[in-house]
Amino acid sequence: MADPTLMDKLVSLAKRRGFIFQSSEIYGGLGSVWDYGPLGVELKNNIKERWWRSMVHERDDIEGLDAAILMHSKVWEASGHVSGFTDPLVDCKVCKNRFRGDDERIKGQPGTPEAQCPICGNRGSLTEPRMFNLMFKTFMGPVEDEASVVYLRPETAQGIYVNYLNVLQASRQKIPFGIAQVGKAFRNEITPGNFIFRTREFEQMEMQYFVKPGEDERWFEEWRGLRMTWHCDLGIKPEKLRFHQHASDELAHYAKVAYDIEYEFPFGWQEFEGIHNRTDFDLTRHQEYSGKKLEYVDTVSRERFIPYVIETSLGTDRLALVVLVDAYREETVEGETRVVLGLAPTIAPIKAGVFPLVKKDGMPEVARRIHDDLRRRLPVFYDDGGSIGRRYRRQDEAGTPFGITVDGQTLEDQTVTVRDRDTLAQERIHTDQVGRYLEDRLRA
Amino acid sequence: MADPTLMDKLVSLAKRRGFIFQSSEIYGGLGSVWDYGPLGVELKNNIKERWWRSMVHERDDIEGLDAAILMHSKVWEASGHVSGFTDPLVDCKVCKNRFRGDDERIKGQPGTPEAQCPICGNRGSLTEPRMFNLMFKTFMGPVEDEASVVYLRPETAQGIYVNYLNVLQASRQKIPFGIAQVGKAFRNEITPGNFIFRTREFEQMEMQYFVKPGEDERWFEEWRGLRMTWHCDLGIKPEKLRFHQHASDELAHYAKVAYDIEYEFPFGWQEFEGIHNRTDFDLTRHQEYSGKKLEYVDTVSRERFIPYVIETSLGTDRLALVVLVDAYREETVEGETRVVLGLAPTIAPIKAGVFPLVKKDGMPEVARRIHDDLRRRLPVFYDDGGSIGRRYRRQDEAGTPFGITVDGQTLEDQTVTVRDRDTLAQERIHTDQVGRYLEDRLRA
Repeated sequence: MADPTLMDKLVSLAKRRGFIFQSSEIYGGLGSVWDYGPLGVELKNNIKERWWRSMVHERDDIEGLDAAILMHSKVWEASGHVSGFTDPLVDCKVCKNRFRGDDERIKGQPGTPEAQCPICGNRGSLTEPRMFNLMFKTFMGPVEDEASVVYLRPETAQGIYVNYLNVLQASRQKIPFGIAQVGKAFRNEITPGNFIFRTREFEQMEMQYFVKPGEDERWFEEWRGLRMTWHCDLGIKPEKLRFHQHASDELAHYAKVAYDIEYEFPFGWQEFEGIHNRTDFDLTRHQEYSGKKLEYVDTVSRERFIPYVIETSLGTDRLALVVLVDAYREETVEGETRVVLGLAPTIAPIKAGVFPLVKKDGMPEVARRIHDDLRRRLPVFYDDGGSIGRRYRRQDEAGTPFGITVDGQTLEDQTVTVRDRDTLAQERIHTDQVGRYLEDRLRA
Repeated sequence: MADPTLMDKLVSLAKRRGFIFQSSEIYGGLGSVWDYGPLGVELKNNIKERWWRSMVHERDDIEGLDAAILMHSKVWEASGHVSGFTDPLVDCKVCKNRFRGDDERIKGQPGTPEAQCPICGNRGSLTEPRMFNLMFKTFMGPVEDEASVVYLRPETAQGIYVNYLNVLQASRQKIPFGIAQVGKAFRNEITPGNFIFRTREFEQMEMQYFVKPGEDERWFEEWRGLRMTWHCDLGIKPEKLRFHQHASDELAHYAKVAYDIEYEFPFGWQEFEGIHNRTDFDLTRHQEYSGKKLEYVDTVSRERFIPYVIETSLGTDRLALVVLVDAYREETVEGETRVVLGLAPTIAPIKAGVFPLVKKDGMPEVARRIHDDLRRRLPVFYDDGGSIGRRYRRQDEAGTPFGITVDGQTLEDQTVTVRDRDTLAQERIHTDQVGRYLEDRLRA
């Protein structure tokens, strides 16, 4: 169900707790660019690490890569982005608003007297759609001419394709095998928005899986299933997830089959990961444009072929938004409303808060000692400011799964209470056992 | 001692083993931009994780941040980069080579008839130096005009300064405190080079420490010492490290005192980390340009002041080069030359190779089982291709500290040999104990 106020609440919580800030905020902000604060960077790092572990470390058939953002402009000619990575752009001559030509709110054909501006309501004020390339362009070296043009990559995938033979040779992999990469990409979007959902600078976690032609459909289905399972394992509510298959008129120029994984955001169902059968399109084009053979030679049959590629392309920022939206809840506890981020413990920025019940009787010293000891094993946070209830609430909002409190009884029997963020149950654990107890609960 | 052939060997090893590839190589390469391969990305991630842990996770007084690469152009006016981040550029009208105006090989004053081109030797062919801004410029939105100019950040530091109040409020830190960040920066260098030493796209690990004016000199000395110790703890040879203090004519426009940490590369002593006392320069300028108060209010004395900033700025790629150069050695073992990367085990991309001595008698199955079991705890690599000596050599070049071999005796008593990369000593360990044995050795 669409709930626009939820997004406002989330943006506000994200700033208050230090997850996400507007970029260049003191200068009025830069449109649709966001900075990750202390908790946000930990959340994002945990998400990336989890993805990297499942893709690269726990599999023998996938290698990692980190290609640069700047690439030779020929790469983007070969990939089709220079000629085809465009959106139709329409301006209203009256109210000066700007639209994508395919904006569903526009009535009539832009450029004709009948077309109506969805904002100011004027008729005949919309310009004819003109194609606008979404790649950011810059110049390498001091001369700003055609020869020195470079683009900020609009997708990380091409860095994988142009390195595919280098990786193959260095790693001694055999087909089928994959190359995984995490990195920034840039798109000069006409209508960015919805917080960190559609931004001009964003991060992708992409994996390109190279297979023998004819085996691509089987591998496509394999990866489609694996990716959905991965999101469910992350604790995202399954009823908020669904597949959307691209109809033939939705398919990108390189794709034979494509499925999106969609999440039901407060602003509707939207894609946050795509699984694409890119066929041999990209490698064939790079072979043609570079003049370098990009064939794979089968080590047994000596067959030569250009591999087909199955791509899984996940937006890090979009997944961060999925995780935040999915975790956000308000509930009433003992007559008070509390805001909770029910983040999965493995990706929570802070694993436990450590609190002295009161700031006296030696409790802060004991709590500090527990904190300093835990810090070597886990990200923890010490807090002795304000009432214990307020400190719990702050950590609830930060998504911290456990709260460890040193109280009067601690001084007698060396036990502390461990509070569970979700159930609010409190257990007494011996101080010596807290580290192991948390590690066990975090693994579960 | 300068050893240019060492750089060639390193570039070759980096490609062969999958550490580093030339960007867009199949298109002839993009000047001074490099891609990290399967082993390179693991090495770099291990370095970054180690830095992040020591800066953010193991300290209470430093918060993490991940600001976007794109920032409001006012940021760079305030910081002084729009007007002052320039290098003097000189062209030779005869041989068309390009130089920095302060190139020591140029004899005479460029632009005069006496000045001599260091490449073609002509006199009077060098142009007068013209100032060239090193920031990459692009446009946000479809209109390429002054209002839409954005720059790729030439340093990550400004992302920290403009977010300093947001981080302070969300984290409830008190001065002195720091903000740490890892991220890409871009400089349109006139003369990049030396492999990954000076590149146009690079990664920084920066920490900005906010202190009370008057306490800055003490904190500067503290951080200068901590940073040098950190590099020594990483295992870099201390005799290859030194401080270089900036003379007054070397100081950047924002700096009061600056020390470089230099390493003796094969191309000479060069800086890879800088510790700078940036005073209140940046925050004062941002306060002025944004019109937003950036003062800190002392929670006890209610004093108001603009903090001074001590910066530690480390190049991730430069540190990766330091680590590779420092680890590279050739030695003769039993009459054969071997190439070894003696990487510290904590940052080695692969922690252990797992080998069946021969491809029969069930050895591969046992080795596979050990590998699959270890993989859940550590990055390991299974290899059954070629002679055992060749497999050891491949892992020596990859910097893998341990080799685990399943041999005839394994089938009798369930022990394997564990080979130490550096001493070549082999110990027999029970298969059940290998994981724990490696973890202990890796911690040491």
